[in-house]
Amino acid sequence: MSLSVHAILTESMVPMLQSFSAILDKAAAFAETKKIDPTVLASARLAPDMFPLTRQVQIACDMLKNAAAYLAGQEPQRFDDNEKTLDDLKARIAKCIGYVESFPASAYEGAETRKIVMPLIEKLVLETDGAQYLADWTIPHFYFHVATAYDILRHNGLDIGKRDYLAHVGKFVHERG
Amino acid sequence: MSLSVHAILTESMVPMLQSFSAILDKAAAFAETKKIDPTVLASARLAPDMFPLTRQVQIACDMLKNAAAYLAGQEPQRFDDNEKTLDDLKARIAKCIGYVESFPASAYEGAETRKIVMPLIEKLVLETDGAQYLADWTIPHFYFHVATAYDILRHNGLDIGKRDYLAHVGKFVHERG
Repeated sequence: MSLSVHAILTESMVPMLQSFSAILDKAAAFAETKKIDPTVLASARLAPDMFPLTRQVQIACDMLKNAAAYLAGQEPQRFDDNEKTLDDLKARIAKCIGYVESFPASAYEGAETRKIVMPLIEKLVLETDGAQYLADWTIPHFYFHVATAYDILRHNGLDIGKRDYLAHVGKFVHERG
Repeated sequence: MSLSVHAILTESMVPMLQSFSAILDKAAAFAETKKIDPTVLASARLAPDMFPLTRQVQIACDMLKNAAAYLAGQEPQRFDDNEKTLDDLKARIAKCIGYVESFPASAYEGAETRKIVMPLIEKLVLETDGAQYLADWTIPHFYFHVATAYDILRHNGLDIGKRDYLAHVGKFVHERG
């Protein structure tokens, strides 16, 4: 693999979400075993003024979805933020992955130097090139929200570890021969 | 900027640690105001069997330090893990940054295709090329530990937000003219 925009989006970030989707399966099984209402984990937070699990997953998905669109020179499709359950979050991840995978590698030709202008909150605008947008905006936000979603579940007693967080990385880890 | 190995390590990951060092200053001021023993935050965790803040920062630093060395075809220098206080963690970050910045851009020529063989825990070995090692190992681990360190402090009441996490990104955010 190379450090191309397409490889980072589809070969590194998409698999991160797939691994997180499997973590959501573990969370659902944990909730069922412990007789926890499945919306409890979905609405859990690490601090009263931090976002709950639902919003962490929505933002992680949007960071990847928006990067795919902006780096291909398109306006991102908007997804409604109406997820309430762990199953809803799995569906959101699947929808995001489908969207990202709809862009062929050729869509990102010249993406590293493409000018990105993205409205933020209030009157703020992010303005930079594609490489910096991916490296300094998309990646730090994406991993922040995936890790925080993991931390919320871990803090609530789910038995997961780095092998769940990076389940997809098993492909290049092997036992000493 | 481009998505080169050198740019990702020194222009994206080093600034992340610099921003986190400023968060540690806020944590120290918070501890002083609240009369909290400064080792309390340093040893705080999100779950009894998760690593405390000290270890999260040590691992984040090591992920970057080791990437700089392996991608340059060298054995990483080992740093002792003896930090106890927030000031110790700031010093660890500074030492890590100094080490990473000691590698010139030319050290990473051919790094994307360089074969990386890295011993992991037990008998496991990671074996892949430089690009995949950076994208699928270094980056997900590095951001996981920085975000979890942030989450630990946020969970313990520190008043920080995304503008602290990504303080260095202010340079390409401006008000609509």
